[in-house]
Amino acid sequence: QLFKIAAIPGDGIGVEITDATIQVLNKLASVEGSFAFEFNNFDWSSKAYLERGWYMPDDWQDQLRENDAIYFGAVGWPNVPDHISLWSMILPIRNEMNQYVNVRPTRIIQGTQSPLSQCQTKPRDLDWVVIRENSEGEYAGQGGTTHGHSDHAIATEVAIFTKVGIERIMRFAFETAKSRPRRKLTMVTKSNAQRHGMVLWDKVFHQVAKEYDGVVDYDKMLVDAMTVRMVNRPETLDTIVATNLHADILSDLAAALAGSIGIAPSSNLDPTRENPSMFEPIHGSAPDIAGKGVANPVGAFWSAAEMVRWVGKGRLDHIADGLMTAIENVCGAGTKTRDMAGTANTKQVTDAICSEVEKV
Amino acid sequence: QLFKIAAIPGDGIGVEITDATIQVLNKLASVEGSFAFEFNNFDWSSKAYLERGWYMPDDWQDQLRENDAIYFGAVGWPNVPDHISLWSMILPIRNEMNQYVNVRPTRIIQGTQSPLSQCQTKPRDLDWVVIRENSEGEYAGQGGTTHGHSDHAIATEVAIFTKVGIERIMRFAFETAKSRPRRKLTMVTKSNAQRHGMVLWDKVFHQVAKEYDGVVDYDKMLVDAMTVRMVNRPETLDTIVATNLHADILSDLAAALAGSIGIAPSSNLDPTRENPSMFEPIHGSAPDIAGKGVANPVGAFWSAAEMVRWVGKGRLDHIADGLMTAIENVCGAGTKTRDMAGTANTKQVTDAICSEVEKV
Ligand SMILES: CC(C)[C@H](C(=O)O)[C@@H](O)C(=O)O
Ligand SMILES: CC(C)[C@H](C(=O)O)[C@@H](O)C(=O)O
Repeated sequence: QLFKIAAIPGDGIGVEITDATIQVLNKLASVEGSFAFEFNNFDWSSKAYLERGWYMPDDWQDQLRENDAIYFGAVGWPNVPDHISLWSMILPIRNEMNQYVNVRPTRIIQGTQSPLSQCQTKPRDLDWVVIRENSEGEYAGQGGTTHGHSDHAIATEVAIFTKVGIERIMRFAFETAKSRPRRKLTMVTKSNAQRHGMVLWDKVFHQVAKEYDGVVDYDKMLVDAMTVRMVNRPETLDTIVATNLHADILSDLAAALAGSIGIAPSSNLDPTRENPSMFEPIHGSAPDIAGKGVANPVGAFWSAAEMVRWVGKGRLDHIADGLMTAIENVCGAGTKTRDMAGTANTKQVTDAICSEVEKV
Repeated sequence: QLFKIAAIPGDGIGVEITDATIQVLNKLASVEGSFAFEFNNFDWSSKAYLERGWYMPDDWQDQLRENDAIYFGAVGWPNVPDHISLWSMILPIRNEMNQYVNVRPTRIIQGTQSPLSQCQTKPRDLDWVVIRENSEGEYAGQGGTTHGHSDHAIATEVAIFTKVGIERIMRFAFETAKSRPRRKLTMVTKSNAQRHGMVLWDKVFHQVAKEYDGVVDYDKMLVDAMTVRMVNRPETLDTIVATNLHADILSDLAAALAGSIGIAPSSNLDPTRENPSMFEPIHGSAPDIAGKGVANPVGAFWSAAEMVRWVGKGRLDHIADGLMTAIENVCGAGTKTRDMAGTANTKQVTDAICSEVEKV
């Protein structure tokens, strides 16, 4: 079986880690033998934008839809305002490809150490998956500016919440919780202060929750108090569902608490499978270390493992599991980058994982 | 000198800690002798609301304005929806009393231990003050719901940012940073995804920043990455300025990282002094432990210390400092509540701090 993958390296370290990921994915395919990847490389980046004035061509949607999945490195570069680069590529892809779920697993893997003193010896005490609403809410993009250049300038950000949007993410979150050993879901909100959209969010949550009574153990947290619980009682959390912005913040915090933002993966899913889903590490383009060959490729590899699971529809889970084992073996043995307190560079980690993949 | 204080105990543990605070404030006054407090008690609470149908009377603004400051316990109770209780009391007070700044200091005090392994031995490595925009942004209250009971329900939350609102909070933040030994300000934003209001926020920040070039050392962080920095490099942060919602989340996280949400204070300030400012611990009404006499009163006392500073306009700073020393001595000696890993109850901590105040 051949899987067509749209590879968008993007900016900065996105390029290095995407190269490394292609090497690892090809290795997996050659070891296994029953499938292969065809990579279609798209040079959509801030650098290209500065040269030609656009990030993606007019027919970008058609081009992406010819693929089974999208692999994304990172976007964002100092000489382009971030809201231009992001609203020119990553955000339109999430929206137009109907990727309304963003799945962000976090756990303490071999070779990482949690900065929380209570977690260092019991890694599985921090084992979460954040289900992020990825299509509306605070990222709806609505709003505007009036009197922009005057002293009475006013600007708005309009967060949009729809019953359709909330219901589908809640259902996905409950199903995720149900599929995990602990069957536990924590819903995050800020309905005490945000009394319109977040109140609808709560209401739809409770409606969907009824269908899972006795099947999934669920509770509700305010987003501010949630950060406290993540720090103080990480072992009480499992699956977490939150809005686009809240989950953006909580998933970065989760990655930091698990020991490294450099290992955290994300899957932007269209659960209907009508459009290709997109897989990307949650870290950014890291201009400060770009081009030096020292970026941590683990977040990229973990994202690739999730991509293998998704395109394989359950039939390639053993391949993804094998890649994760290889990653943990290599990092656990000390071959890891500086952000994980190691001394290896991107190539050394990548080569080591490629050899390890042959063994597991 | 007599200071008139409007005391609003509110709900749950708000009542217990306000009683304890009044005891401590009276003690401070009797020890010092040159000033006194007159407490005007307002029974505005969820309990009263359920009995009589309102939280605050029609002339609440006039009643509050007769005081030099407002001391607030907590609001929120399980049988009233949170968005009703909060929009009936705490949020209108912040808005109508022009308390556009919310100051939230966080540090590791004697007797607390940071959950971060790197911070436990060097307490001053985590010494922050969060300056929260307290009058607009995500808490503007605008938005609404359409088709609420149908399957195509849609609800909006409209965040409003004005140049006037942003400029005054930035100026306050820069002045705060300038007054602290490290003269460092970190501005938090999410202007990569929120391209209207947050872009104005950034723009006004840079305008105000120009006036402080060479005086205050400033930088800019995205809110998601900020959580990572708070966890991994707490020693690089000092003064932090953020929107109403971002700072709400970050200040809870800050308190957790410093070792206890029960000690964190907040000051809701009207810097023009045309209206009374309001002081409240950042924790909530804690229904689970309410009425048991075990609540940690330290956040309430620290808030009271900030109130003393404010009403004293610089002349009573030694009193506030004395109270803080008494708190640290008592907690450091082990008289502290369960959330700080002690065994004392509210009364024991309060009595111990009252005796200590006589000595320092
Ligand atoms: C790059 C940015 C728009 C993005 C987001 O906020 O969604 C990133 O922080 C992420 O978490 O994927
Ligand atoms: C009670 C609630 C409205 C409040 C807020 O979100 O501002 C609280 O969390 C706080 O931090 O003071």
